Amino acid sequence: MSYVKLDVGRNLVVRAKHDSDLVEFLTELAKKNRIMAATFTAIGALKHAKLGFYDQKTLEYLETVLSSPQEIASCIGNISMKEGQAFVHAHAVLADRDGNTKAGHLLAGKVFAAEIHLIELLGTKLVRKNDAVTGLSIWDTKV
Amino acid sequence: MSYVKLDVGRNLVVRAKHDSDLVEFLTELAKKNRIMAATFTAIGALKHAKLGFYDQKTLEYLETVLSSPQEIASCIGNISMKEGQAFVHAHAVLADRDGNTKAGHLLAGKVFAAEIHLIELLGTKLVRKNDAVTGLSIWDTKV
Amino acid sequence: MSYVKLDVGRNLVVRAKHDSDLVEFLTELAKKNRIMAATFTAIGALKHAKLGFYDQKTLEYLETVLSSPQEIASCIGNISMKEGQAFVHAHAVLADRDGNTKAGHLLAGKVFAAEIHLIELLGTKLVRKNDAVTGLSIWDTKV
Repeated sequence: MSYVKLDVGRNLVVRAKHDSDLVEFLTELAKKNRIMAATFTAIGALKHAKLGFYDQKTLEYLETVLSSPQEIASCIGNISMKEGQAFVHAHAVLADRDGNTKAGHLLAGKVFAAEIHLIELLGTKLVRKNDAVTGLSIWDTKV
Repeated sequence: MSYVKLDVGRNLVVRAKHDSDLVEFLTELAKKNRIMAATFTAIGALKHAKLGFYDQKTLEYLETVLSSPQEIASCIGNISMKEGQAFVHAHAVLADRDGNTKAGHLLAGKVFAAEIHLIELLGTKLVRKNDAVTGLSIWDTKV
Repeated sequence: MSYVKLDVGRNLVVRAKHDSDLVEFLTELAKKNRIMAATFTAIGALKHAKLGFYDQKTLEYLETVLSSPQEIASCIGNISMKEGQAFVHAHAVLADRDGNTKAGHLLAGKVFAAEIHLIELLGTKLVRKNDAVTGLSIWDTKV
């Protein structure tokens, strides 16, 4: 079973910058604060967004562009290391003005307002490596 | 970058009261236990619910009323201080009997059953103040 | 108010096994590591899945079968004890290739890839018992 036991580091409560890209904002937050492993949740609203679906056959991302404002009904993600850099992996459920939803891998999202709770994890390095079976960059956590 | 570093306080696992309103229940939980900052997740089911979408142009909430029972597929939120009182901010994804979803800001939801995990955060006060750009009451976390 | 205050135990970051069932994988993770109480979040993708909706009148689960690949846009859950065994309760929001969602109680889901963050909770036992009002097995957390 592939897991790592980590210790809790900093707990950060963050207000994402208005008009920033949420994924870039989180990446910058990690880099500036030397966060190498973390998990986070976020709620708020986006001006527009781009979601991804990973095609399990072609091993490529399909994109869904949402050009209208969306509530971030849910955003769950993590930060780990990929090619020596902090890498953000986030999934989101977005809702439009009628409460209708689209969801998937959060590729981009322009922040109207967003509240993030990030739990830093300390200890063993959490590193992504290419995986032949899925074509994804997954954690090298064989223990 | 606007964030606050907080320490982890109490970890509470809570069963929401049958027939209570989930938002009011969380507010009361915070007040009774003097919780001034926290994040939480919840799953369960509601008898009926009201979701909000914040119109980024008119700066007003639109409401979606769901009068039939719903699974709480996801609920992510936080507690902070607003005008001297504990204030609950929660977003939810709800699913009907066919698995179809509606999502947004959780304005109200009558509890059938709900399981909450709340992480109290201690340290700097997490206070909401009116924000001119968004019209929202957001965290005053300039650090 | 029915809650228990628990202490944070191990923080595990877990990559679920390709082709395992996510609910069974989490159950096995708990049993092998003697985890008796925990909360978790997960993101990733499933090859296929089965979601449940609890009918609040008949007190029975209705099932929605999703036979095509899905992103795990959100998965929130917990582990507690039921009849002396570790029991996983998870809700999920799943998204198809167009970003369209189905959500509910996660009954089964074949893992393509999944990243789990689990927070073990220590202290008072978190035990499920049958509840006459809902017909569900809920936490016996009268405090």
